[in-house]
Amino acid sequence: MKKIVLLGAGLSATTLIKYLLKNAEANNWNVLIGDIDLALAKKKVNNSPYGEAFAFDVQNEIQRTEIVKSADVVISMLPAFMHHLIAEECVKHNVHMVTASYVSPQVKALDQKAKEKVVALLNELGVDPGIDHMSAMKVIDDIRKQGGKILSFKSCTGGLIAPQYDNNIWNYKFTWNPRNVVLAGQGVSRFLRNGRYKYVPYHKLFDRVQTTQVLDYGEFEIYPNRDSLQYRETYDLQGIESIFRGTMRRPGYAAAWNVFVQLGVTDDTYTLENSENMTYRQFINSYLKYEPIKAVELKLAEYVDIPVDGEIMKKLKWLGIFDDRKIALPNATPAQIMQKLLEEKWSLDPEDKDMIAMQHEFVFEIDGKKKKHISSMVVIGENTEDTAMSMTVGLPVAIATKLLLNGSINTPGVHVPVKPFMYEPILKELEEYGIKFIDEVHDFVEE
Amino acid sequence: MKKIVLLGAGLSATTLIKYLLKNAEANNWNVLIGDIDLALAKKKVNNSPYGEAFAFDVQNEIQRTEIVKSADVVISMLPAFMHHLIAEECVKHNVHMVTASYVSPQVKALDQKAKEKVVALLNELGVDPGIDHMSAMKVIDDIRKQGGKILSFKSCTGGLIAPQYDNNIWNYKFTWNPRNVVLAGQGVSRFLRNGRYKYVPYHKLFDRVQTTQVLDYGEFEIYPNRDSLQYRETYDLQGIESIFRGTMRRPGYAAAWNVFVQLGVTDDTYTLENSENMTYRQFINSYLKYEPIKAVELKLAEYVDIPVDGEIMKKLKWLGIFDDRKIALPNATPAQIMQKLLEEKWSLDPEDKDMIAMQHEFVFEIDGKKKKHISSMVVIGENTEDTAMSMTVGLPVAIATKLLLNGSINTPGVHVPVKPFMYEPILKELEEYGIKFIDEVHDFVEE
Repeated sequence: MKKIVLLGAGLSATTLIKYLLKNAEANNWNVLIGDIDLALAKKKVNNSPYGEAFAFDVQNEIQRTEIVKSADVVISMLPAFMHHLIAEECVKHNVHMVTASYVSPQVKALDQKAKEKVVALLNELGVDPGIDHMSAMKVIDDIRKQGGKILSFKSCTGGLIAPQYDNNIWNYKFTWNPRNVVLAGQGVSRFLRNGRYKYVPYHKLFDRVQTTQVLDYGEFEIYPNRDSLQYRETYDLQGIESIFRGTMRRPGYAAAWNVFVQLGVTDDTYTLENSENMTYRQFINSYLKYEPIKAVELKLAEYVDIPVDGEIMKKLKWLGIFDDRKIALPNATPAQIMQKLLEEKWSLDPEDKDMIAMQHEFVFEIDGKKKKHISSMVVIGENTEDTAMSMTVGLPVAIATKLLLNGSINTPGVHVPVKPFMYEPILKELEEYGIKFIDEVHDFVEE
Repeated sequence: MKKIVLLGAGLSATTLIKYLLKNAEANNWNVLIGDIDLALAKKKVNNSPYGEAFAFDVQNEIQRTEIVKSADVVISMLPAFMHHLIAEECVKHNVHMVTASYVSPQVKALDQKAKEKVVALLNELGVDPGIDHMSAMKVIDDIRKQGGKILSFKSCTGGLIAPQYDNNIWNYKFTWNPRNVVLAGQGVSRFLRNGRYKYVPYHKLFDRVQTTQVLDYGEFEIYPNRDSLQYRETYDLQGIESIFRGTMRRPGYAAAWNVFVQLGVTDDTYTLENSENMTYRQFINSYLKYEPIKAVELKLAEYVDIPVDGEIMKKLKWLGIFDDRKIALPNATPAQIMQKLLEEKWSLDPEDKDMIAMQHEFVFEIDGKKKKHISSMVVIGENTEDTAMSMTVGLPVAIATKLLLNGSINTPGVHVPVKPFMYEPILKELEEYGIKFIDEVHDFVEE
């Protein structure tokens, strides 16, 4: 019997745990689910004869050592900054590890030791990072095998509400960590276009939107997603003329969200005095000029230069930002206040389904001709537990775990899934779950 | 003989050192000037029989102890984050200390120990902080003595070029640390107006400008200066309806500087790839949209919504931001590139004189009537060494040192100059150097 230890039984582990328990008998697995919250771990085991719940505290060094030593594979779904504690134990005790998170410098530094101990530390096996790497590298490697040269790479991903349940005027609901959505894009974003570097500060980000069509799911808008330049190295695309990664929303979202960015109410670096007793209307007013005879709505419209009776103002009013209602949140940052308000409006209803959309666009040259390759994926969630997010984050992790245990993946060291030995079998099995890309190749026409 | 040890002999210590050496004989002082750069310390001693230069390394613990032990007063003009190292030594060895910098939490924590050891640690004795505290508290205490109640406090300070030498279209030259000017205002600024909290994010700061007249020095514009709210505690103004602190520039500066803020080129948090080989024109273009058939000037004007042939564009062109000239600065942040360019254009000419302007405006109620008290100071530098900045930073420190040594100030503990025992004698002596406020009191007319 092989022992799988999964640490961290939160929302993103739902589909992952189901897969492991469902496939446990056939594969002869014993699945241990550890979480700081024992009740949560028990709930996720759901009385399966192949599962076992336990209370896990990552700060308990003795427990950390004992539990890792006992495992054949450890899956860490803990907060990203804790992974290296588990990774270090894994290397020490010759145990493989799988995570869905970005490789931290501390984990990266374990590469040589992991190779010596013949241990595989597999990372970035969620959706973004994860499925984005695998699907992009598959196309990149295919184009190169045919003798093509890649000139441009654009890629975008969005976690959204599925069309059938898309019933608010923002065309958006929280399908993932709300805090990350409120803070999204802070810092500078960078990309390359036709050899020109492009840098976009946060306060201009939602003003730099492109649009795209994805299959028959309609139109999406895309804003730049942080540092696209680093993907030249990850995907071995050094010297490429254009590289861009973006985040997808439905059209109209960025222009309305931009109002919050312009006001400054997505800032999480300071707290507001007396936020507890402030109303939402006073909160918004504290970011506007002092003009006591003008309505807050009008002041806002003038300040951020939007029509006072247009679509954007409708979206803002729908959220209740002008309401004379107490915030009732002490010592809150502006971002925390916005999150509270948005959670009231953007939460999934019990019958809702979410959607993950991803699209890559490659321009390449082959036999003296320029071609465009578009690769698109849309996944619709099954319900509010097995969401598209939970499926696309959990299934690659689960499949990688299986492949490690059955010996199909046996390359030691620290890895992200950019090589065929990882992306080929994982993408193949993902197709069985409806997670697949539709590819189109056209002649490229300069715009 | 009393021994004064001054640590840090940089630009801001010029007038301070001259004062100490000039007054050494009459007061029976021996002045030791320490700097990491011995040559600089020697130059500042300038062969005075009352001075002595030495090489000082703050990281050298043994030297730190020895030199502090030997002193009667230590003046720390070191970078602000180093003061606490000196302050701790001072308390240990019963030596007074004077600085021009904000009290750090570490220095503040020494208050009780300093009192036990009968040691005075005097801080914030420059111009801002320093002269601003002293002059404001003098008026506040006066109004209260008369039975008045303060309703509103506005205060602004600017380091500028003196009118006679104000000969560029920005009406600005660097009279102080250029880096601080490039980074000025980053973060959020906060103030109170008629009981309403106002928060201004950095990207809106230069769009929130007021204007004022100072004496017969003409018009100035004022943008909010960081956290004004904290001055309620510093000046014992809890419950005040309006409190605002600002930075002064000449009219037109903020609108033009705002272009740089909007572009994002004052960011100091990341470096630009290949900055060494980039031209200034390419640098600016990397913050604009990709539109290869449009001129960079036109793209910029459209992007930040300014007339392509207006005053702002003239200021930008005058700086050379559109020049096809290499930056020649490797691994530079945008802020470093801007600083390099600005230093070529905004440096003082050898014959230039700088100016410090400061203005407080108090609204108070007395005998059922509202009054406005305006207190204004303008100091013109003597030359590029004894600048207004060097005089207004150095003289309060020098005077405080003298008052400590002659026993006029003898209150142990950690202090900033908000009490009469400090501000009265210092303000009085500052007047001898032409550093004085002109006061006007009017009936207050609601706008």
